[in-house]
Amino acid sequence: MADLSRRRLLGGGLVAVGAAGLAAAGGGAAVASRTPERMGSATVDPHGAHQAGIETPPQAFASFVALDLADGLDRDGLTGIMKVWAEDIRRLAAGRPALGDTEPELAVDPARLTITVGFGPAAFDVAGLPDRRPSWLRPLPAFAVDRLEDRWSGGDLVLQVCADDPVVVSHATRTLTKNVRSLATVRWVQRGFRHAVGARPDGMTMRNLMGQVDGTVNPAPGGPDFDRQVWNQGDPEWLRGGTSLVFRRIRMELDTWDELDRPARELTVGRTLSNGAPLTGTEERDDADFEATDRYGIPVIPPESHVARARPRTADEQFLRRGYNYDDDGAGLLFAAYQADVDRQFVPVQQRLAEHDALNQWITPIGSAVFVVPPGFGPEGYPGDTLLGR
Amino acid sequence: MADLSRRRLLGGGLVAVGAAGLAAAGGGAAVASRTPERMGSATVDPHGAHQAGIETPPQAFASFVALDLADGLDRDGLTGIMKVWAEDIRRLAAGRPALGDTEPELAVDPARLTITVGFGPAAFDVAGLPDRRPSWLRPLPAFAVDRLEDRWSGGDLVLQVCADDPVVVSHATRTLTKNVRSLATVRWVQRGFRHAVGARPDGMTMRNLMGQVDGTVNPAPGGPDFDRQVWNQGDPEWLRGGTSLVFRRIRMELDTWDELDRPARELTVGRTLSNGAPLTGTEERDDADFEATDRYGIPVIPPESHVARARPRTADEQFLRRGYNYDDDGAGLLFAAYQADVDRQFVPVQQRLAEHDALNQWITPIGSAVFVVPPGFGPEGYPGDTLLGR
Repeated sequence: MADLSRRRLLGGGLVAVGAAGLAAAGGGAAVASRTPERMGSATVDPHGAHQAGIETPPQAFASFVALDLADGLDRDGLTGIMKVWAEDIRRLAAGRPALGDTEPELAVDPARLTITVGFGPAAFDVAGLPDRRPSWLRPLPAFAVDRLEDRWSGGDLVLQVCADDPVVVSHATRTLTKNVRSLATVRWVQRGFRHAVGARPDGMTMRNLMGQVDGTVNPAPGGPDFDRQVWNQGDPEWLRGGTSLVFRRIRMELDTWDELDRPARELTVGRTLSNGAPLTGTEERDDADFEATDRYGIPVIPPESHVARARPRTADEQFLRRGYNYDDDGAGLLFAAYQADVDRQFVPVQQRLAEHDALNQWITPIGSAVFVVPPGFGPEGYPGDTLLGR
Repeated sequence: MADLSRRRLLGGGLVAVGAAGLAAAGGGAAVASRTPERMGSATVDPHGAHQAGIETPPQAFASFVALDLADGLDRDGLTGIMKVWAEDIRRLAAGRPALGDTEPELAVDPARLTITVGFGPAAFDVAGLPDRRPSWLRPLPAFAVDRLEDRWSGGDLVLQVCADDPVVVSHATRTLTKNVRSLATVRWVQRGFRHAVGARPDGMTMRNLMGQVDGTVNPAPGGPDFDRQVWNQGDPEWLRGGTSLVFRRIRMELDTWDELDRPARELTVGRTLSNGAPLTGTEERDDADFEATDRYGIPVIPPESHVARARPRTADEQFLRRGYNYDDDGAGLLFAAYQADVDRQFVPVQQRLAEHDALNQWITPIGSAVFVVPPGFGPEGYPGDTLLGR
């Protein structure tokens, strides 16, 4: 009951649950069994050196939720939100209802639920710790291609909620936001999807709604460069094991994209549509050969194609992408990129793409936000405890 | 190429596909294999005495699309739309790209895709056949509980697109609508979801976002009453094997619903939350005993509860429900009911619920439309051929 009292103190969501609700909260699956008989009972451990939901192989469904902190909130209030969420995350990720969960039956099968928490720039002012704010934690530079709308941009906090069942995502999103609603109000919710589990052969890279294989060049968790590219290495010390999230809502102009035939689409992207192979290769993961020319001396992969422009110019210009399709209110991609340093890794690539990318005619960034993702937390901790807790 | 030419004549979607697009259109899975190794490769036969997507066990994802016919369209134009859709349906349901499909790779694994076509009232005027319009094909009577919005209501045509993969639903929805866009414009799209395949144990009734088991009392395909309740029996003859779709967008007032504890919720609905059993039973499918009283003589199932008010008063007052959750732009249920006769089966039940239902305080119908669903069609036919083809 200690936690219930704390939630009451925080002025959060309603706690009018009867005895049956509390009893129902007792059930649930064990944490971290990854190969259950049923997809729905699979769980992802929410604890560790890094927050879950980044290295985690992408689940089929996601909602990204930005919240704005209430006026007058201070560091204790922000810490309170994080403690509520930590307890919600522990429970929901294990298939147990949140404290005061009004629909506990929707929490039973978590389907690899992960909940990842990030801070926007203003959270550091609220916490009275503006000097701890990473230098790259600010809105991205204005790019010429941007047509940003407030309703899809910004935010003081972000929740990334992912699972292989959309009912789980819906329930967790609602639970997390309502449990803090007097302290933080929802600014936007953006929902995305990939192929459902079992729909496509295992291990295939997702396709976006333009039909392209999307996400081939991506550092592999456990690979040699992943740690360096994605996780902060201890500068500042509180952020060691954390990362950043660059979130962009990229509208696809599908009606005009339809006017291109397949060869023109492939030259625009620099990859085949059938399997995503670079135009100089035959398999999706073949290295692109940007020097190759045809018998007339013309580059096989056009220099203005998306892959040629996006190609890293330095070892720094790489990051982890983990995007989702959307088709409500237009159609496109919820682009989500994670990198240790936004300015050093993401910005130069996007700068180059904004200057020139054959694909720009058919994609328009309409939302943008940058967040710092604090390190992982332990069974007694909470997101951001290395920042707020001392 | 005959079909491509026809589509060009119809002024429909673009046909700027290269040779590769047509080549890609050759692949695909066989029709009607129902137990494949992978969920995605499962198909549902689009042909038969009834349209697919009604008897079909509900897929995890749905989009309902209403379209308005272009001014000046006549019976030939309407027939043309149906012929285009019939070909699209045959191909997409089999895992083959539509003719001129600009993203053929998104069509490969249909994941039990079904596409069901219905006509709104005005389609009969466009066809010059107003005397063939069923008497019940008109907007529902105004109910006191309704707060209907135009943006979720009405329509001259409806497409119900269902599959176990949201990418398939998105691709099919776009393909079908763009291929007729000079002839019919999209009025609204409403997207819904249930638990993903594998998320919950097989055979469980879905839960809605209020946490209730939803859809227990539903005629079973193949059961004794199903044919009589759902399928038109030949009056009028052209509609034999067809049915009606009553579609309602029902917003749930979740924030105030949260204020109820579990016993109050169970008395409101008349069922337990844990497994959906009637309050007089122990298992979901136990018959409710509306006469049972407690030791004080008070009915165990309150007469104003949802199940007590919804209970059929006559053998006619039954219909097939096949609803989906939504959580974009509010949250609630996309209620979809199929019955041979709207006036005889659906309206009296809804009339009674609108007059009094304990649940009304927390649900608000904000969209409404009625469609006739023509009978199934054969490999050479199209939706509505028994109406339009002679």
